[in-house]
Amino acid sequence: METQIRVTFQPHGRSVSVLSGTTILEAAARAGLVIETPCGGAGTCGKCRVRVMQGCGAATASDERVFSSEELREGWRLACRTVIACETVVVVPLASLFGGEHQILATSDSGTTPEILPDIRKIHVALAPPTLIDDAPDLLRLEHAIGPFKASLSLIRHVSATLRANGFAGTAVLANHHLIDFEAGDTRERCFGVAFDIGTTTLVGTLLNLCTGDKLGVVSRMNPQVSFGDDVLSRIHHAASCGNCLDEMRLALTNEVSGMIDALCAGATISRENIYAAAFAGNTTMEHILCGLNPAQMGETPFVPMHARGLLVPASELGIPIHHGAQAYVFPIIGGFVGGDTVAGMLATRIDRHEGTALLVDIGTNGEIVLSHNGVFYAASTAAGPAFEGARIACGMRGTHGAIEKVVFDDDVRLEVIGNVAPTGICGSGLIDLISELLACGIVTPEGQMLAPDELPGTLAPALARRVRADENGSISFVLSEAGAGCGSSPVALTQRDVREVQLGSGAVRAGIILLLRQAGLDVSDLGIVLIAGGFGNFIRRSSAQRIGLLPGGIDHTRIRYVGNVSLAGAQAALLSGDARRLGEDLARRVKHVELSTMDGFQDAFADAMFFPRS
Amino acid sequence: METQIRVTFQPHGRSVSVLSGTTILEAAARAGLVIETPCGGAGTCGKCRVRVMQGCGAATASDERVFSSEELREGWRLACRTVIACETVVVVPLASLFGGEHQILATSDSGTTPEILPDIRKIHVALAPPTLIDDAPDLLRLEHAIGPFKASLSLIRHVSATLRANGFAGTAVLANHHLIDFEAGDTRERCFGVAFDIGTTTLVGTLLNLCTGDKLGVVSRMNPQVSFGDDVLSRIHHAASCGNCLDEMRLALTNEVSGMIDALCAGATISRENIYAAAFAGNTTMEHILCGLNPAQMGETPFVPMHARGLLVPASELGIPIHHGAQAYVFPIIGGFVGGDTVAGMLATRIDRHEGTALLVDIGTNGEIVLSHNGVFYAASTAAGPAFEGARIACGMRGTHGAIEKVVFDDDVRLEVIGNVAPTGICGSGLIDLISELLACGIVTPEGQMLAPDELPGTLAPALARRVRADENGSISFVLSEAGAGCGSSPVALTQRDVREVQLGSGAVRAGIILLLRQAGLDVSDLGIVLIAGGFGNFIRRSSAQRIGLLPGGIDHTRIRYVGNVSLAGAQAALLSGDARRLGEDLARRVKHVELSTMDGFQDAFADAMFFPRS
Repeated sequence: METQIRVTFQPHGRSVSVLSGTTILEAAARAGLVIETPCGGAGTCGKCRVRVMQGCGAATASDERVFSSEELREGWRLACRTVIACETVVVVPLASLFGGEHQILATSDSGTTPEILPDIRKIHVALAPPTLIDDAPDLLRLEHAIGPFKASLSLIRHVSATLRANGFAGTAVLANHHLIDFEAGDTRERCFGVAFDIGTTTLVGTLLNLCTGDKLGVVSRMNPQVSFGDDVLSRIHHAASCGNCLDEMRLALTNEVSGMIDALCAGATISRENIYAAAFAGNTTMEHILCGLNPAQMGETPFVPMHARGLLVPASELGIPIHHGAQAYVFPIIGGFVGGDTVAGMLATRIDRHEGTALLVDIGTNGEIVLSHNGVFYAASTAAGPAFEGARIACGMRGTHGAIEKVVFDDDVRLEVIGNVAPTGICGSGLIDLISELLACGIVTPEGQMLAPDELPGTLAPALARRVRADENGSISFVLSEAGAGCGSSPVALTQRDVREVQLGSGAVRAGIILLLRQAGLDVSDLGIVLIAGGFGNFIRRSSAQRIGLLPGGIDHTRIRYVGNVSLAGAQAALLSGDARRLGEDLARRVKHVELSTMDGFQDAFADAMFFPRS
Repeated sequence: METQIRVTFQPHGRSVSVLSGTTILEAAARAGLVIETPCGGAGTCGKCRVRVMQGCGAATASDERVFSSEELREGWRLACRTVIACETVVVVPLASLFGGEHQILATSDSGTTPEILPDIRKIHVALAPPTLIDDAPDLLRLEHAIGPFKASLSLIRHVSATLRANGFAGTAVLANHHLIDFEAGDTRERCFGVAFDIGTTTLVGTLLNLCTGDKLGVVSRMNPQVSFGDDVLSRIHHAASCGNCLDEMRLALTNEVSGMIDALCAGATISRENIYAAAFAGNTTMEHILCGLNPAQMGETPFVPMHARGLLVPASELGIPIHHGAQAYVFPIIGGFVGGDTVAGMLATRIDRHEGTALLVDIGTNGEIVLSHNGVFYAASTAAGPAFEGARIACGMRGTHGAIEKVVFDDDVRLEVIGNVAPTGICGSGLIDLISELLACGIVTPEGQMLAPDELPGTLAPALARRVRADENGSISFVLSEAGAGCGSSPVALTQRDVREVQLGSGAVRAGIILLLRQAGLDVSDLGIVLIAGGFGNFIRRSSAQRIGLLPGGIDHTRIRYVGNVSLAGAQAALLSGDARRLGEDLARRVKHVELSTMDGFQDAFADAMFFPRS
């Protein structure tokens, strides 16, 4: 394990530890700050400017082309070109952040941020008490102060009592024009919402301040439904397999979400009763189960969901224990296997704003692919499997503390581990790096075979060769780390079986992209931008993704951009803005849902993609 | 008891039995058909034309002025002038009905009928089942057929199953744009609603066909809350007197309403599950209790209600057991003692359409008075007491089977009894007639004293004089009927105490009218029309109402019109038309609420009105 170097980003105050040689761009991404790189990190556009306040990097030729000598003296550098060699403090100006403050909600092309205009508004009122002359009823008094509203009977019962017990003052909580509560005192500061990405394998939730848009916490858990099967089809079958199976799965999910909300509240020391809105984005099956809708009909041809529109329903009806009057938004659906998470991704990346042709590839347990071509959207789904989320991989894990998230080979293996600790497993981004390196050095063949110790190429560095092991049954594995807890009782290693899982997953995504382009009459050369999304970890190396064939050959790597968990970002956008939600509804309606399996050439395309590309 | 004569009205097929000498106009009113009389029944306007197909009435001078000799030969007569002398069959043309088919919902001046356009619509659909090519989700398929809608999660759960179990066909039930049910088969014929007048003393409910507007039944019951006190103030105090008193009163009411709905359903052989809407009009206190809103603040100055706007809430939230997705509408409120029943009355009479100055007097346990003057509305409330609804009167009863509803004195007493049976009591209209006749013949003095047998004027017919009795304590009463069941064990009689109740009640109404006119700077001579509403019975005789001083002196009797239960009529209008409901909301907002007790001269006006008028 090499020494890691500390990099601190200001004014955000975030620090990460990285290997020597990492660019500031990559380090910033690990700190959750995605910097503008319209040129794809080629050092030419000058958009990724940052100011190195403390550190030891010399200016590169690119820096000298972009900055004046005074700027260079002040520490201005291009984040994509500047390599970290010692402890560094970097100031990232807002203008350099991808999409400004709400960076993952906007594209680099537009640079605009969506307005924060949530449905929830809190208004503090101090009303004149009634007299014989001014004898307007209590609620009419309130209406004069806050505008027309609707309210449930139970709330009307409560408002007068609260008004009269507090000298006709208090805080009205409005969800659009529905009064959902009337609170004693001035509670305007306490106004929160939660957004969730409900993945087949992974759940991620964030707590947001609805007034400022600030993110107050994030929590990630395994979807407890994995005990009922690790892909959507097995979930669909389980839901239909007994009378209360659907409800059992729904409760497993909502209980976990409830626990995540507890954790978010504890982290921010707020009360669940001050969470007034929730937004959920998930694939079609996950959203159906969340809503208690039987997904059975998606398990048989023609794989048709029950509903498609976004649902705005009482959170209590979903069993989500936040404010009793809160509404929960569940994202609109495109088709049986292209769900609300894809719509959320389209919304977060504003794929509609890309001129020409753009591709969004969201890799989860299913890989969803959206192609945007001159205002027309095509979407399809392909079974990537849970490998990239760490499941079905011997030492796989999510991108959390202890996960190997970056792998580089030189004369031996160099690792980056989240939290800078001994590794306990490997997450999606690490896996992609590792397979890429194994392919590059010939330990794994393009056919996906991991060579035995005695079959290795003679040019291989000895340290690397020593990591290839065969057990007593002849099963081959590649050992990453003997140190630390490892996975189970073994060292952290990659098995032949793991290689097959990645091979199938990346092949499925590549074939899906090729077929969808074909459906639109396009070719990879038409692609202006390729956005890769998913919960791989903190970053994904484009070269690695290309090397393992997650994307078709022929895409200029400067056109590829990693945009992170866009499903969660879209859910957050919907929470913060009714306009964003309506835009999502509109995008969902405009998408052409393509069922790849009914296309001519489907079998051939998948068969072709089952091998890794020959470099 | 004189023989009664049968009169049949066509094409309605309704028959009533009346005393000889009754006009066709009065008989029609008893049959529920209110005929146009813009001239007030003076025989001059010619609007009340009917055709006597069978009978024995000769043409009057008025008939000869209005009709041609050919028309006279065909049987055309003025309903206001034609007296019934033998069994008669009358055809009433639509043009002669007050307001056409929906007579009580429109004024005679406009003659227009509100459109039947209820919020509830049923649409039968037969959808194409999904295929791999046409893979739209189930609810999107439905949306293509019925337009965009919202639905609860529980209904979405139900729709797909119902569609798929019935070959993708069924009947959608929409309340505005909310899908509230999806029923197997074609159920369009089964679409009903209920409208209720929630009076302090009396509850009246009707069952309507929402497609046609047809009235399928009516049922009337005593408000069971009378056990908690017989006026609104005692109800308000009881509601606040213990922790669950409000809920106890609410449940007493909703249980009775539920029983009435059962009776309506049984009568029309329909299911409660096919009642998709309900409308309720009542005074402010009754509506508060119905909604579970504590009326306590209306028991103390400044008598301010909790809310004012009309409420559209789930019927289930009110505890009204109809369709589980049904909405209930509760009328908007004007002030603490001028409630939704008044708004409903304004709506039913379309008081906004009267040019000049119009007065609506709705006499229930409270008397509500609305003055419309050149587009400005004033409303006030006055405590009439429950006498006109038959309560606090020794032999008082509601206007149902066995009630004396009309009293005429000649040399003895002539009675009309509802159902043509031996009388069991006297209802409001009979009471007004009786007091009027007793005043006219001198048995009751303008001060309200019933003379003892030995004080009676010598000119009095002996048969009438014999009806005045004094018991062993010297209490005087006037016996109406020795025959029949009587009230309790006594004969049907009027007591001195009963006279005092009517005296107070009619005086309160008269004083209220005088004060409200004064507030608007007007005089009785300014009144273009006076509409008297209430549940007195089937009809009210204007001359009697004037004689007992229910109205101020000086109103030309041709300007007075009895319009029946306008609170119920308004509730029905709101059930049948969203436009009507919105109009009611608008009227409620435009009314100036006048608190009579804070006016200068309040005490004097009430003291002046405490005596019956000297004729």
